[in-house]
Amino acid sequence: MTTETFQARDEAQIRQLIADQQSAICAKDVDRIMSFYAPDVIVFNVRPPFQTKGADAWRQIWEESLRHFPGSFGMETRDQHVVVSGDLALAHSLLRFTGMGADNDAAQTWLRTTAVYRRSEGRWQIVHEHNSVPFDPETGKPVFTLDS
Amino acid sequence: MTTETFQARDEAQIRQLIADQQSAICAKDVDRIMSFYAPDVIVFNVRPPFQTKGADAWRQIWEESLRHFPGSFGMETRDQHVVVSGDLALAHSLLRFTGMGADNDAAQTWLRTTAVYRRSEGRWQIVHEHNSVPFDPETGKPVFTLDS
Repeated sequence: MTTETFQARDEAQIRQLIADQQSAICAKDVDRIMSFYAPDVIVFNVRPPFQTKGADAWRQIWEESLRHFPGSFGMETRDQHVVVSGDLALAHSLLRFTGMGADNDAAQTWLRTTAVYRRSEGRWQIVHEHNSVPFDPETGKPVFTLDS
Repeated sequence: MTTETFQARDEAQIRQLIADQQSAICAKDVDRIMSFYAPDVIVFNVRPPFQTKGADAWRQIWEESLRHFPGSFGMETRDQHVVVSGDLALAHSLLRFTGMGADNDAAQTWLRTTAVYRRSEGRWQIVHEHNSVPFDPETGKPVFTLDS
């Protein structure tokens, strides 16, 4: 295979991993969600703390967060970009949860998400994830809509 | 050179690029700041909008932001991580501006910053940057301190 073919194959693998992880999130399957992360992952998440170090600590946050999710929901992704070279891959996109009900905090909330995958022994895992919403210093409030 | 030696050399290059860019920011040298970005960079910044596409749009935000900075200031970095493979590099850290004066918005404000570099024709440039502070949904406010 040529370098371009390898790259196209790797990019397709990353896009499939993202789809598989979203499926695991919608199934509230924490074991499967965590299988996408490296043990030494460092996460900058939407909510405090500033950073979360290691899969064990990040797992606790997933378990706590999913308790507040309804029985059934979906995920919508826009502007997904994937770049792969060697054993490193970048994926970033805009994301929101759907079907959450109007009274749920996560409803109508767009997020920016960045994930970096490292391939080790043939297996891609997330070594860094950064999720956030913008903060408007003029209003003192976070911004949840794409058109702002 | 071995793969490990190449990797160590590339990591040292990225750390030097970060130091050089911080030096350009403290000098308010927008041309030099922008030389670290690829033309097609996509930025998720602390402030709205949700995303900024392309170096021209990102340059305008740098020019506007630097107007609010004092004549002299510094930058403090913590927990810097650099991972390189092939022609892709990840760098993430916690960051704050120093010497801004107590009345400046950016004073005492820690940020999380993630940058992904791509090497093209031997030159590393940032293709994606994600800067944010966490948002606490219980208080409705952003969080600027590391111990929260």
